[in-house]
Amino acid sequence: MKVLVALDSFKGSISSIEGGKAVVEGILPVFPDADIVALPLADGGEGTVDALVHATNGRYIKIPVIGPLHEKVLAAYGILGDGQTAVIEVAAACGLTLVPPAKRNPLSTTTYGVGELILDAIEKGCRKFIIGLGGSATNDGGLGMLQALGYRFLDKRNQSVGVDGKSLKHIERIVLNHVHPKLRDCEFDIACDVHNPLYGPNGAAYIFGPQKGANQEMVEELDEGLRHFGMVIEQQLGLNISDISGAGAAGGLGGAFAGFLNGQLRSGTQLILDVLQIESHLQSADFVITGEGRLDSQTAMGKAPYGIAELASKYQVPVIALAGGISTDSSALNNLGITSYFSIMNEPMSLEQAMDCNKAYENLTFTSNQLFRLIKAVLFKEG
Amino acid sequence: MKVLVALDSFKGSISSIEGGKAVVEGILPVFPDADIVALPLADGGEGTVDALVHATNGRYIKIPVIGPLHEKVLAAYGILGDGQTAVIEVAAACGLTLVPPAKRNPLSTTTYGVGELILDAIEKGCRKFIIGLGGSATNDGGLGMLQALGYRFLDKRNQSVGVDGKSLKHIERIVLNHVHPKLRDCEFDIACDVHNPLYGPNGAAYIFGPQKGANQEMVEELDEGLRHFGMVIEQQLGLNISDISGAGAAGGLGGAFAGFLNGQLRSGTQLILDVLQIESHLQSADFVITGEGRLDSQTAMGKAPYGIAELASKYQVPVIALAGGISTDSSALNNLGITSYFSIMNEPMSLEQAMDCNKAYENLTFTSNQLFRLIKAVLFKEG
Repeated sequence: MKVLVALDSFKGSISSIEGGKAVVEGILPVFPDADIVALPLADGGEGTVDALVHATNGRYIKIPVIGPLHEKVLAAYGILGDGQTAVIEVAAACGLTLVPPAKRNPLSTTTYGVGELILDAIEKGCRKFIIGLGGSATNDGGLGMLQALGYRFLDKRNQSVGVDGKSLKHIERIVLNHVHPKLRDCEFDIACDVHNPLYGPNGAAYIFGPQKGANQEMVEELDEGLRHFGMVIEQQLGLNISDISGAGAAGGLGGAFAGFLNGQLRSGTQLILDVLQIESHLQSADFVITGEGRLDSQTAMGKAPYGIAELASKYQVPVIALAGGISTDSSALNNLGITSYFSIMNEPMSLEQAMDCNKAYENLTFTSNQLFRLIKAVLFKEG
Repeated sequence: MKVLVALDSFKGSISSIEGGKAVVEGILPVFPDADIVALPLADGGEGTVDALVHATNGRYIKIPVIGPLHEKVLAAYGILGDGQTAVIEVAAACGLTLVPPAKRNPLSTTTYGVGELILDAIEKGCRKFIIGLGGSATNDGGLGMLQALGYRFLDKRNQSVGVDGKSLKHIERIVLNHVHPKLRDCEFDIACDVHNPLYGPNGAAYIFGPQKGANQEMVEELDEGLRHFGMVIEQQLGLNISDISGAGAAGGLGGAFAGFLNGQLRSGTQLILDVLQIESHLQSADFVITGEGRLDSQTAMGKAPYGIAELASKYQVPVIALAGGISTDSSALNNLGITSYFSIMNEPMSLEQAMDCNKAYENLTFTSNQLFRLIKAVLFKEG
């Protein structure tokens, strides 16, 4: 009996890692000899570093970098067990949670610290990068990050422009001869689940600017800056990054990765599933347990449990999905490859009670235990 | 694939019959050719007539009888599909719900109507009786019922005593020669899950009198009456019913059935499981689905799902139990023979939302469906 346990986090309740432990604790008493592989899932957003560090027996690095407000912040990233792949959530260096609401202004915030994290990882021997783009407080088109990496952006007086959103419109020339030389050996996989272009009505400024603190006027200025930046890049480097799907992610950081660092923008879920080699684990599994906070066909798109279900159905491995809340309109989810799914609620309770981490742990253990007792009974009948 | 579906009612939410339908609706899409036997469960209490009439394709009889307050009430009972077994809940003729709180006084209430129901069933050809004793408003020792059946109880002036609790103490003589002649051909199975003797500190009056409206003085008078009644019966008929376990059920009606009608007092659950021939259905079943409103080792004793689980484990048939609320302390319930059990909650919700009949129906269908999808996947893997 081989079981792959790979749950997403139950957001606000239990982490992917703890949730997996809880499930394993439910299965083991029923199948003490089972070969259980427990891998935490992530989608490129919050928890991605934790999941990949844990899954690969990697390590955390914590260093001071320039934060979004140009002040020093301590930012963590991960180096995977292979010692040469870094995993970075950009929010660690330029995230909205680092900026108090009163100070949110994407004209001023910078991604400079993201570049510093990359440099640090390069120094530590990393040449592969997994980057999660979620939660940035910035709209600088990656201008900060790129300058940290040695790119120079000059204004009409041949002075370096700033590292923030409002500096984009001043760029006249791009100078490449100070770029960190090891960057050309690096590969960047970018977890990016939005498809916005760099600028325009669906671009970074218009779509994400307001939630980062931009008013209408600021949005227009930022959009103009990104448009100008795209034009300069096209003219001087011959690269059209403006229309890349996802270039507008993280205030244009998506475009910077794609255009300057040859980054591959991919679905976060798919990227993480690849890194974790889920498919190879699946091929030899008898059952897969996955799950997330809420299972709902309305919110299925791009989420890790559905990515797993899709892969599992390729190998006809039954998939059991567990969640705090589920929609009982089952056909949609079952058609996505989930054999069966269940809520772990054990009685009527409030959302607050349900979200309690200990309760979630206990209920995950209980439900897994009862399900595997059933599986054992069915196998026993047949065997 | 043969499945036995036998749920108890989810009290206050969904009936045993509807709950069973919901489960069948969940199984059929997965195993369209399954042989599914759905039997409603009951424990001798409320819902017993419905369950047995439904399970045996029987019919309802509704007739006017003397109610607990000596006024006419319409009372229903059932005749099972065999045409010769009547099922009577005594509460239909002498139940507490027929007496407004202000009028609750077990010195005055009578079981006369229960006797009338029995007579009616005898007239309709019934010779077997299944009697549920729960919920009576009376403490008359069965004096009312017995008089309806032709027993005569005379006082010291050779006048018939009354038919209520306060008349017990006046009985001097029992006259049997007007007893309905067909009664000697009748068998009475009495569903009785209490073990109280007729009188004394654990007797009918002391234990159940207060909830029927008796104050301390009335309790003492009632207890004295039952004690006197027991003594007269012993002296004149040579029967000691006082110490029979359950004689104190339903205000002494248990004793009357046992002493005068040779009734067999049995666990309601066991009685109903027998009537429904659950054991023979179990022997050929591949799976059993049972359930009740709440699954909890603290409240397990005597309940139908546990009776089923016990029988099922004898034949090694896996038992899945479903409930609104469950205790996750699983070892106790699993040790009672329940293979696996699950709550049908699909998300955090209030008790009131959870009790909604339509919601319970939908969730029973959903959970059964997902469980049988899993069972099918496991069978498919092996097959």
